[in-house]
Amino acid sequence: MSEFGFSTSHANGAARLGEFRTPHGAVQTPAFMPVGTHASVRGLAMHEIRDAGAQMVLANAYHLYLRPGDEMVRALGGVHAFARWNGPMLTDSGGYQVFSLSRYRTVTEDGVEFRSKLDGSRHRYTPEKVMQIERNIGADVIMQLDELIEGGSSFDASRAAMERSLRWLERCRVEFDRLSREGRAPIGALRVPDGAPALATTDVERDRVAPPQALFPIVQGGTYADLRRASIEGILGTGDWVGVAVGGLSVGEAKEAMYDTFDVCSPLLPADKPRYLMGVGFPDDLLEAVARGMDLFDCVAPTRMGRHGTVFTRDGKTQVQKSSNRTDRRALTDSCPCPACTQYDRAYLRHLMVTEEPLGPRLLALHNLTFLMELMRETRGALRDGVFASWSAEWLARYRRKGRD
Amino acid sequence: MSEFGFSTSHANGAARLGEFRTPHGAVQTPAFMPVGTHASVRGLAMHEIRDAGAQMVLANAYHLYLRPGDEMVRALGGVHAFARWNGPMLTDSGGYQVFSLSRYRTVTEDGVEFRSKLDGSRHRYTPEKVMQIERNIGADVIMQLDELIEGGSSFDASRAAMERSLRWLERCRVEFDRLSREGRAPIGALRVPDGAPALATTDVERDRVAPPQALFPIVQGGTYADLRRASIEGILGTGDWVGVAVGGLSVGEAKEAMYDTFDVCSPLLPADKPRYLMGVGFPDDLLEAVARGMDLFDCVAPTRMGRHGTVFTRDGKTQVQKSSNRTDRRALTDSCPCPACTQYDRAYLRHLMVTEEPLGPRLLALHNLTFLMELMRETRGALRDGVFASWSAEWLARYRRKGRD
Repeated sequence: MSEFGFSTSHANGAARLGEFRTPHGAVQTPAFMPVGTHASVRGLAMHEIRDAGAQMVLANAYHLYLRPGDEMVRALGGVHAFARWNGPMLTDSGGYQVFSLSRYRTVTEDGVEFRSKLDGSRHRYTPEKVMQIERNIGADVIMQLDELIEGGSSFDASRAAMERSLRWLERCRVEFDRLSREGRAPIGALRVPDGAPALATTDVERDRVAPPQALFPIVQGGTYADLRRASIEGILGTGDWVGVAVGGLSVGEAKEAMYDTFDVCSPLLPADKPRYLMGVGFPDDLLEAVARGMDLFDCVAPTRMGRHGTVFTRDGKTQVQKSSNRTDRRALTDSCPCPACTQYDRAYLRHLMVTEEPLGPRLLALHNLTFLMELMRETRGALRDGVFASWSAEWLARYRRKGRD
Repeated sequence: MSEFGFSTSHANGAARLGEFRTPHGAVQTPAFMPVGTHASVRGLAMHEIRDAGAQMVLANAYHLYLRPGDEMVRALGGVHAFARWNGPMLTDSGGYQVFSLSRYRTVTEDGVEFRSKLDGSRHRYTPEKVMQIERNIGADVIMQLDELIEGGSSFDASRAAMERSLRWLERCRVEFDRLSREGRAPIGALRVPDGAPALATTDVERDRVAPPQALFPIVQGGTYADLRRASIEGILGTGDWVGVAVGGLSVGEAKEAMYDTFDVCSPLLPADKPRYLMGVGFPDDLLEAVARGMDLFDCVAPTRMGRHGTVFTRDGKTQVQKSSNRTDRRALTDSCPCPACTQYDRAYLRHLMVTEEPLGPRLLALHNLTFLMELMRETRGALRDGVFASWSAEWLARYRRKGRD
């Protein structure tokens, strides 16, 4: 575990400036992590993500398990080599996808059975299987399998899912440790098609050694404070985790309820461990979460919205396709260092979106990512200077004024 | 016209090494020109096109006339500023699009009436109107409006279209000259939407001065040698053109018939003018055309094919999605300097295509463009060294061996 570490250097109330060290390098926190579902951030090259300021990138175990297969990723050198990202990486378990994307799914105490949305094939996700998949894929941080329920679920349903997630966490932990101790199973018979060279894995025993990884538990419990407390108690009672994630938020609940949940969780989480808030990526939510002690963030919304023409500015969100951009030769924003803002104007960006030229979605997704990276960079600067509260209040006031459109 | 010039420095049989000078710089010929239909090469940024070796870029007058409008392009600074390409540019008249994409079209001696495929609105394309459009857009080289007919049309139909194209050429020439002499019409009332800044055009008289441009005539006549000869005779009898285009090929005729047409046209075309072969862009066709005296080329097929996973290699075309690439960690090709070949491997590129990640089409389109740029660069080297015939024969033999798959 010595490959992982976390330390904080400055605190501003509950907000903290920190450094999360992984086998593939350090992440200065607070940090937003772009999502590369299939080991590719939609439409963008990794050098663009890096230039935007990304430090750590996500991939999705469910998607990589289906295509090209977790054993294939391992045989091709692991997810860092596969994705061309030599920095820190994290895989989500894919639980969210199993629960939301599968054609049919059956949840039992053992796990989830589902049919692939791609070809209808049957699959079985158990805590043990998910650990095997994520250890094959090889990201630095891997997430437990948890049971996901709809936003707005009842107390009883939320409690049942939270408690099952705790039991699944324990099974994940046991399997994770077993794989560390005994090594990964030898790769099965990967079909090497006619005419293709054999795969490079020659040292079968060495290949079985799992890379150093950290398993993160996920706090669940919806917006019920009692359940969140019980979830954290259960998690902290069973292991000395490298970091802890908070999940199940930004699923339709009121923003205040989400912020309140940060307030509930934060004081109960270990101060010396990074806190990863899953699936939250709007600028205002990031600042509210940082203020309440969260350190790491991910969300597909910024890139997805960008692909559809909705972009972040310091004055709130705006829509690139709006008609007033037709003749507007000004930069998209005057502060962002991304190519969309420094090399193009609003009229041309609108033209790209209106004519469905794929350069448009590409540039605007990169803009939204760059915007969040810059926001987190400024956040770290404000924390370092001890002015986070006032800086953040000013930033949010301008962002929420909604004067731009 | 002094802004334009063409000179050849080396000849290898009918093939020649040349330089085409335009107001926006010189093009070393033979050269392939990427197509940026809506003033954007699909999915690619102009700096990537430039890095690939592109010297001159096309845009399409029909598409820009519909969106954002030719007057809008002019008001936004002209097509070079709009597309962010400060090098030589060419607009096709859009005749091909009017004839192939319009919902309804009526062709008379006066011109073409059509309904937009976008919204069904009625439009009228005449030789005069096309000149006004292309002079508003402002590319260095602009193409005449010609009448397009289906590949494999009869002699009589081909003759009628060829003769009409000659009459339209004369009307284009007269209108082109009038616009040079009298200036462009003042820009109509461009609707500047509420909240948008006024457009920058403050000097109305200066804005009316048309930029220096060259009008290229288009040789037509299908695969009928007599018609091609008559077309060239008609074209050369009416003007001292900066360059001449050969159109109406690669529309389904046999390759030999296309190559024979080059042989018919080439000796009749002025030796001291660049020859632009329209719509031809496969590697073998380029070399066959260079051997027969052609200088400039464009085609959407290389980028379109790339977006669908078909890529050029020195050993012929190959399909990135093929199953043998599943486990293949080799570079896509070992000679091409593009990012797909230097930063990724076949297994990952296949994965991107199979999972429909937009980075795949982007990388493969750029590969095909880069491949053609490199081919033209090598072609120019062989011409300079006086070894084009033997070099080209060897290149084609390997390319046509089709041993790769």
